[in-house]
Amino acid sequence: MQLLPKPLQKLIAELSKLPSVGSKSAMRLAFHLINNEENASLLSSAITEAKGNINKCNKCFFITEDELCSICSDNSREENLLCIVEKPADLIAIERAGVFKGRYHVLYGLWAPLRGTSLDGMHLDELIKRITQDSITEVIIATGSSVEGDATALYLARYLSENGIKATRLAQGLPKGGDLEYLDDLTLSRAMDGRVSIE
Amino acid sequence: MQLLPKPLQKLIAELSKLPSVGSKSAMRLAFHLINNEENASLLSSAITEAKGNINKCNKCFFITEDELCSICSDNSREENLLCIVEKPADLIAIERAGVFKGRYHVLYGLWAPLRGTSLDGMHLDELIKRITQDSITEVIIATGSSVEGDATALYLARYLSENGIKATRLAQGLPKGGDLEYLDDLTLSRAMDGRVSIE
Repeated sequence: MQLLPKPLQKLIAELSKLPSVGSKSAMRLAFHLINNEENASLLSSAITEAKGNINKCNKCFFITEDELCSICSDNSREENLLCIVEKPADLIAIERAGVFKGRYHVLYGLWAPLRGTSLDGMHLDELIKRITQDSITEVIIATGSSVEGDATALYLARYLSENGIKATRLAQGLPKGGDLEYLDDLTLSRAMDGRVSIE
Repeated sequence: MQLLPKPLQKLIAELSKLPSVGSKSAMRLAFHLINNEENASLLSSAITEAKGNINKCNKCFFITEDELCSICSDNSREENLLCIVEKPADLIAIERAGVFKGRYHVLYGLWAPLRGTSLDGMHLDELIKRITQDSITEVIIATGSSVEGDATALYLARYLSENGIKATRLAQGLPKGGDLEYLDDLTLSRAMDGRVSIE
């Protein structure tokens, strides 16, 4: 695209590195930004500011501006319930649903040996230490139901049980509003395996 | 989303102002940026640089770093053919197809009286002056085939003809590879109206 001025080419190249932004969307975003100066300068300063001011919580590794995140520093939450999630967005989804009032541990990844991802960076030692220190009574493993999510959940459950800690994981089955006709076989077979008696 | 640190909330808000970025994509982009520091700082500086260094061409109003854009300053192009487009991305599409070797005029908008958009900012006086000065022999109006595109083309054709200049516009009909079964009625009726004899 030699037609375009160099700075614009560079902007398009940077934008197309973003997840699920292709070259056409990158061009549209770039044109939008150069035509909306205010939006552009606010965005650029928001990126710089976020980059410089965001850390991981010392306790649960969720993102925060301070030492502890808003959840770990909230004393009204239940101390002895812990939920393990893959990434910050998953934590946010659970919070949005409002179904859990305990604390979290964010892994930042899943165990995928075939893709060379180990559990090294996931702070499992800190996790065990914290579970003992905070006298946590239930650990809920809330990884997704992909192959890696399943593998990570099984690995973690075993790892925790070796350390004398019991873990549960999220139920798998029909999504709410799910029509059996359009459901994939695996979900259906999981739902069948996990069937519960109607009381 | 009080859970998240302020700078991140701000970044998400700015990202969701971008075209076709909803609140969920904005959050995903924001997480990507804070986890990829290099990507983030390159993007932020690319935005700043593009914002400061991009002007409109003095002649055709396409984007450029200099006084004249790469097309207006290219002497190998035909001087007496002019193509009017709505926006820079349309110019790029025509250049990519390689079907036109003349010069351009970029309107930055369409005539949409119902949405309060007039033709005021579209430099029509400069257009007329330029057509006379450069002794342009053919003006091709290459607006899209939406209602506004049609209206703008008709308006421009009339305006040019009042100034003694003839204009053509892009043919409308079946898109290449288009199956009649799935075509909308309007395209089909345009294709029928514009039928050409097979020689």
